[in-house]
Amino acid sequence: MIFRSFYLALLTTVIVLPSCNAQSHQNETIYQYATINALMEGGYDGELTMKNLQKKGDFGIGTFNALDGEMIGFDNHFYKIKSDGKAYPVKSSTLTPFAVVTHFKTELKHDTSLILNLKELYNLLDSLSPNKNLYVAYKIKVVCPKIKTRSVAQQTKPYPKMIEAVKKQSVFESNNSSGTLVGFRFPEYMQGLNVPGYHFHYIADDKQSGGHVLDLTGSDFKIEIDFMDDFELKIPNNPEFNKLNLTKTKLEDLEKVEK
Amino acid sequence: MIFRSFYLALLTTVIVLPSCNAQSHQNETIYQYATINALMEGGYDGELTMKNLQKKGDFGIGTFNALDGEMIGFDNHFYKIKSDGKAYPVKSSTLTPFAVVTHFKTELKHDTSLILNLKELYNLLDSLSPNKNLYVAYKIKVVCPKIKTRSVAQQTKPYPKMIEAVKKQSVFESNNSSGTLVGFRFPEYMQGLNVPGYHFHYIADDKQSGGHVLDLTGSDFKIEIDFMDDFELKIPNNPEFNKLNLTKTKLEDLEKVEK
Repeated sequence: MIFRSFYLALLTTVIVLPSCNAQSHQNETIYQYATINALMEGGYDGELTMKNLQKKGDFGIGTFNALDGEMIGFDNHFYKIKSDGKAYPVKSSTLTPFAVVTHFKTELKHDTSLILNLKELYNLLDSLSPNKNLYVAYKIKVVCPKIKTRSVAQQTKPYPKMIEAVKKQSVFESNNSSGTLVGFRFPEYMQGLNVPGYHFHYIADDKQSGGHVLDLTGSDFKIEIDFMDDFELKIPNNPEFNKLNLTKTKLEDLEKVEK
Repeated sequence: MIFRSFYLALLTTVIVLPSCNAQSHQNETIYQYATINALMEGGYDGELTMKNLQKKGDFGIGTFNALDGEMIGFDNHFYKIKSDGKAYPVKSSTLTPFAVVTHFKTELKHDTSLILNLKELYNLLDSLSPNKNLYVAYKIKVVCPKIKTRSVAQQTKPYPKMIEAVKKQSVFESNNSSGTLVGFRFPEYMQGLNVPGYHFHYIADDKQSGGHVLDLTGSDFKIEIDFMDDFELKIPNNPEFNKLNLTKTKLEDLEKVEK
């Protein structure tokens, strides 16, 4: 363990930005539209346009109406990774049924040349952001010898529940891809509203491919972290959402869908 | 049942305000500081002043640092009902560890001369606000032949958990009290963040007494309802909060504390 720690220290650099450290954080808001349980129950249509979502944040993840692909955005450029595995720029009029965004402000930087799989990356992020009661956003540049992502096909009505929809998901495996991971860690106490723990989407540097991250082997991680203590949840105002039973989603079903 | 419905219709009047109805609602925010589970686990100290809380709403309920009494406010006047059963105006510098407020806007009015106990009142509110996925605020003028309230004594460190603190709560029974109920209904999917279902505090018209409502028999209800679809949660930024394990609170313990 001592050797491992020494090795970690040798190969990583942490930059704490002025007036910030891992314990403090700015008064920033993480904005969420709808709830993960609504999505789990088949609530795939929202009224929020990308234009209005982007007023709430320049960085985030989500999906699109009819569950048509994985959303990823940073530096105010948002993309849709469809079930063909390709990334498409998102139109301002496109609607989302579920998304999480923030105005990303880097509070902590950490670079490492360690080679890590997804679980090891999560362990590193745990050590960099130990306060599990805060909302945390991560923007991570990475070079991936291997990365496995997925996207879900556009659904047709009557919508199946997500546990059914993901059975037909498209899985993409890429070698030697470099790109950006965009994601969040939500506290366990937010279960029902969002995915507890880590949740990452990925887009390659050439903006051609990506998806919801299932696994990776990466190196040259350039990690930027934003800590937040203010959460805004806007729920859709439509009859479909209002009719959903949002209390019956099982955590194990959510884990099946996300992993 | 038919007779009952007819009787209900005869004795009650519903006024839907212009441009509003029970299905629609304005884009309003309900603001919450900290989580109910934090309170359950003994997180009794926050940094939010009443002055700053009142910027987020002129109406709401909560408690005070060290769990020193029950908070109730409407029309921008906030009170503390201490364990002596008396109501005191709140100072702007007073701190709260947990509160829920909104800028109350009446969207639906309903008057009834029916005599109802607390459970029957909840059934009536269910019928007036059937969408259980929205956040709903209620301001209710009432004449109570009987009302039973409670308050909790100021705690000293090391703080006990709330399930222990309420074992020494003060219970007050009043006859022929007229006053105002202030409360919310939170969706079941918010469990962990707030109390699922209804939660009311009460203050008498003479602003001398009140508390967290345990039971009542009331008549001449003048109900005002505000529907909301936007929820903002601000979590405290202090070491005590950050150390709390917010995932282990049991729903049955919450029910014991609230009822």
